[in-house]
Amino acid sequence: MAAPRILILGLEPQVDCGRWPAKACVGDRVPIEATVVRDGHEALRAAVRYKPPGGRWKEAQLSVDEPDRFSGTYPVDAVGRWRFQVEAWLDRHDGWLVEHDRKLAAGQADLTGELAEGEQLFGPGSVDEWRAAAPMLAATERHQAVRSGVLELDVERQLARRGAWYELFPRSWGGLRGVAEVIPQLAALGFDVVYLTPIHPIGETNRKGRNNAEKALPADVGSPWAIGAVTGGHDGVHPELGTLADLEALVAVGHEHGIELALDFAIQMSPDHPWLSEHPKWFQHRPDGSLKYAENPPKRYQDIHSVDWETDEREALWNALRDVILHWCAAGIRVFRVDNPHTKPVPFWEWLLAEVRSVYPETVFLSEAFTRPAMMTTLAKAGFSQSYTYFTWKNTREELVEFVEQLRSWSDYLRPNLWPNTPDILHAHLQQGGQPAFEARLVLAATLSPSYGIYSGYEACENSPLGAGGEEYLDSEKYEIKHRTLDGPLLPMLRRLNELRRAHPALTGQGLETLEWLETEGAQLIAYARPWRVGGVLVESVLVVVNLDPLSTSAGVCVVGDGLGLPESIDVVDGLHGRAYRWTTGRNYVRLGPGQAHVLVWTAEGA
Amino acid sequence: MAAPRILILGLEPQVDCGRWPAKACVGDRVPIEATVVRDGHEALRAAVRYKPPGGRWKEAQLSVDEPDRFSGTYPVDAVGRWRFQVEAWLDRHDGWLVEHDRKLAAGQADLTGELAEGEQLFGPGSVDEWRAAAPMLAATERHQAVRSGVLELDVERQLARRGAWYELFPRSWGGLRGVAEVIPQLAALGFDVVYLTPIHPIGETNRKGRNNAEKALPADVGSPWAIGAVTGGHDGVHPELGTLADLEALVAVGHEHGIELALDFAIQMSPDHPWLSEHPKWFQHRPDGSLKYAENPPKRYQDIHSVDWETDEREALWNALRDVILHWCAAGIRVFRVDNPHTKPVPFWEWLLAEVRSVYPETVFLSEAFTRPAMMTTLAKAGFSQSYTYFTWKNTREELVEFVEQLRSWSDYLRPNLWPNTPDILHAHLQQGGQPAFEARLVLAATLSPSYGIYSGYEACENSPLGAGGEEYLDSEKYEIKHRTLDGPLLPMLRRLNELRRAHPALTGQGLETLEWLETEGAQLIAYARPWRVGGVLVESVLVVVNLDPLSTSAGVCVVGDGLGLPESIDVVDGLHGRAYRWTTGRNYVRLGPGQAHVLVWTAEGA
Repeated sequence: MAAPRILILGLEPQVDCGRWPAKACVGDRVPIEATVVRDGHEALRAAVRYKPPGGRWKEAQLSVDEPDRFSGTYPVDAVGRWRFQVEAWLDRHDGWLVEHDRKLAAGQADLTGELAEGEQLFGPGSVDEWRAAAPMLAATERHQAVRSGVLELDVERQLARRGAWYELFPRSWGGLRGVAEVIPQLAALGFDVVYLTPIHPIGETNRKGRNNAEKALPADVGSPWAIGAVTGGHDGVHPELGTLADLEALVAVGHEHGIELALDFAIQMSPDHPWLSEHPKWFQHRPDGSLKYAENPPKRYQDIHSVDWETDEREALWNALRDVILHWCAAGIRVFRVDNPHTKPVPFWEWLLAEVRSVYPETVFLSEAFTRPAMMTTLAKAGFSQSYTYFTWKNTREELVEFVEQLRSWSDYLRPNLWPNTPDILHAHLQQGGQPAFEARLVLAATLSPSYGIYSGYEACENSPLGAGGEEYLDSEKYEIKHRTLDGPLLPMLRRLNELRRAHPALTGQGLETLEWLETEGAQLIAYARPWRVGGVLVESVLVVVNLDPLSTSAGVCVVGDGLGLPESIDVVDGLHGRAYRWTTGRNYVRLGPGQAHVLVWTAEGA
Repeated sequence: MAAPRILILGLEPQVDCGRWPAKACVGDRVPIEATVVRDGHEALRAAVRYKPPGGRWKEAQLSVDEPDRFSGTYPVDAVGRWRFQVEAWLDRHDGWLVEHDRKLAAGQADLTGELAEGEQLFGPGSVDEWRAAAPMLAATERHQAVRSGVLELDVERQLARRGAWYELFPRSWGGLRGVAEVIPQLAALGFDVVYLTPIHPIGETNRKGRNNAEKALPADVGSPWAIGAVTGGHDGVHPELGTLADLEALVAVGHEHGIELALDFAIQMSPDHPWLSEHPKWFQHRPDGSLKYAENPPKRYQDIHSVDWETDEREALWNALRDVILHWCAAGIRVFRVDNPHTKPVPFWEWLLAEVRSVYPETVFLSEAFTRPAMMTTLAKAGFSQSYTYFTWKNTREELVEFVEQLRSWSDYLRPNLWPNTPDILHAHLQQGGQPAFEARLVLAATLSPSYGIYSGYEACENSPLGAGGEEYLDSEKYEIKHRTLDGPLLPMLRRLNELRRAHPALTGQGLETLEWLETEGAQLIAYARPWRVGGVLVESVLVVVNLDPLSTSAGVCVVGDGLGLPESIDVVDGLHGRAYRWTTGRNYVRLGPGQAHVLVWTAEGA
């Protein structure tokens, strides 16, 4: 026969027809679905075959929940590239029994022929014996068995999905040793990752001054993203921050307190970077031989140079960049925040991430791809563990709903990390809304996404812009040293939210796939449920209601739909304030002050 | 580099990752879309490359309508398997000009370096000369060009998409010569295809009697689907219907009047079929050697036998079945209605259709796959030109909307053919609704789908069921001879609808992709627009409103939305009755008698 009689179609998860792997985390039960089609009416069976990296193929049965659509899950317990496929076959034993029973029920008297067929199929015995043997026979004797193509699944550790991030400029905290001192406090607040802006030597040539002034004054310290000076390049530590040994000590302190350090990986070089003289061919030049600097007209970045991805020395360049990451991995770093990956070739990232993970499989990469959806998603597909998103710019209910729906449509391959602020982005909503806006945005970030982060100063509601209509900070820390301590009115809320996130897998054990919107009456109220099911059973549900208006109280109704699987009377505790409420399936009256929120936790009895 | 820097993703149309071809018809401009991604900000270009069967590759430019998403069309002018792919490249010329202009606009004074680069790129000349040359240079000098994989497109003639079908039992019309006599009338009514139920000799052993009685009386004529007798099998003509020469003459008369004849292809054999003795191994036997008959417990079809698709003589069986089709093609038949294809292996159909089309490329196959969506769609993907649908069972507004939306989601590969009745299905809605129900269902079938058909008797509103709660006809024509003539109250409406369909490409020049639902107030009113655009410009639009209630008048409002592109004041003519109306963008009052409809035609000025 030209092709097998059973067809396996519509296998999911599948990213771009298998061009890229789907994603999962260690400890997940990975869902899989496939349509299995064969002519006729006979029963079909299907199983998922799956293979850990370096391990042997295993198998789990799939079941049919809707016609012709098989589904199930399989457990993944190790980091790396898994493989999976679906096998389907004809269950002639079940088919025979069903036909036999239907004929018997229809009063068909003479079944001699059928029984002779049964004996051929089952061997000697009675129909009852055959019925008992059928399930085992069906699983082992696989008639007309076919297998789908093999797909890949990229399994990472849980930190790839969930984590509370805190971003800081080490120079504002007394260098690497100063950061080490604040680690216990950050741990007590419940942060999982402390992300350091670049720690490398900073160029002096064309250095930018305070507030991004084109000319620096002698005392100006420059932007940490203008990487490279006589004292070193991407593998160096800025002398005023400390030494490699200080970094290793900081990693150790973090480890002691359950905090991981993340470094920044920005592929750009100050005019003083050693590579400019050591490897001139790695950089773009004008026809007259002069070096090109980075620009995006009318903006000019004369303090940094980009590499020439079309250089003849491409292999050496790629290897050198990989070795930068491996250097920091050797120092104990396993998390990297990658600066502007969308301005570098996608195949480079696909190669780099695979190279690093072949040595350090547990390495997590956060993509700072503030760019259009096509490139943002392509980088996620190419291997980034997680990605910055458009969250910062999504402030109205309509914007937030559209934003979350877009993330949900990407959930096979893109894991979001939601940041209400970054050193580059102080949104007008925060500038104008003050503390209530900071609070609302924090609750949204921490309860919508398993990963979220804040840039330091957020806890103190810092919101002075450089200029009206812009998103830059006044006296941006990018260009000067602050003298920071952990302080601010949002610290208690941060601690409560991070506690809730750790206590409730509904918030961090899964992506946005299972989020359910709750209908609200009241234009500024947004509400959603984060259900958590184990083996299909609802174990807990977190109901979040946020007043998006930072200036006024909002009162209205929040509707808990029947479809959520909650009891008619719902006893909940507000995780933010500890108050207990009795809600109902149906309409619930809500009244929230400016920017205030409910984070209501419902737990199933016995759970 | 490991992989090209430009990536082409999400290419459409693509059916199951290219496992099957998408479909189009001769004369179409085939739409194509792809996401093209590259790092950085430089301009990209893309084109579709396409290749007719046996011809050479051609090219058409694509344009960017939304960010990173290229789209366009290409014309197909021949039947067969076309190939297509997308090519994308970097437009360095445009990139240079844009950067130059932005710097100039920003007042950047010294552009010496930039101009030197420009000269390297464009050659000697001025910026104005370069600007003039840029489009041509961009089209020919393709930097970093990449091509997607090659996909296939199955192009059929327009009859694969659109046609009005009339099904008849030739024995009720005086045999093949009698049918030839009625062809001019059917042509005058506007039918495109006359589909004859099986014309082959009918078995006598275990013949079914009238009303599907298990035992036939001596005078009973049997079911035409119990194929095969001493006088011949699938390649024979029933002696009482005429001869092969009569069929060829009928084909010729059809041709003269613009009507195609369709034959039925049912792979099942009466106990008297010559193949049972000539090729016993092609059929299933019990262990005791007795032949199995077809059954679907508790139903038994003792008058027919199915073939054994697992036979060792598979190749001979497949070839014999193919030769049946080729035999009728040689007699001039180019349209086949295939009986129950879902009970035969999909790979068989994929092979058979390709084999037949390698000799007669213009052959159209209609799939009678009244089965679950997975198999119905898989047969369409495997090569059937068009498919029966669930239309017969979709009678309420909600059912119809869901039905049409499902068809729309399949439009890359499944072309629907809507039948309000068949010899097997007389729906309760027609039994109870009488003539108004027949009228409403006819308007729906003829205006929702480019292909529709009726089984004879529909025009006379025949609706006597065999029993209550069933869908079988009383005194079904399947088991007895009627003496039919073309007559009945629906003939004028049939003629008007077929005229409208031929006059308006909005109804038959496209599938359901462009259908737009119109909001109605009035539970029993359903309304939709069928717009027709040429090169993006709206040329005509047919607005259909149907009162689904066969018992009562419905009055209400039909809302014409802004999005339809119609003028504020819409002058329309009702194609059913010729009356003129002035409608508006907005709310229009509608009042329709039981089962009555508007088919309002709007034509753009100058069109």
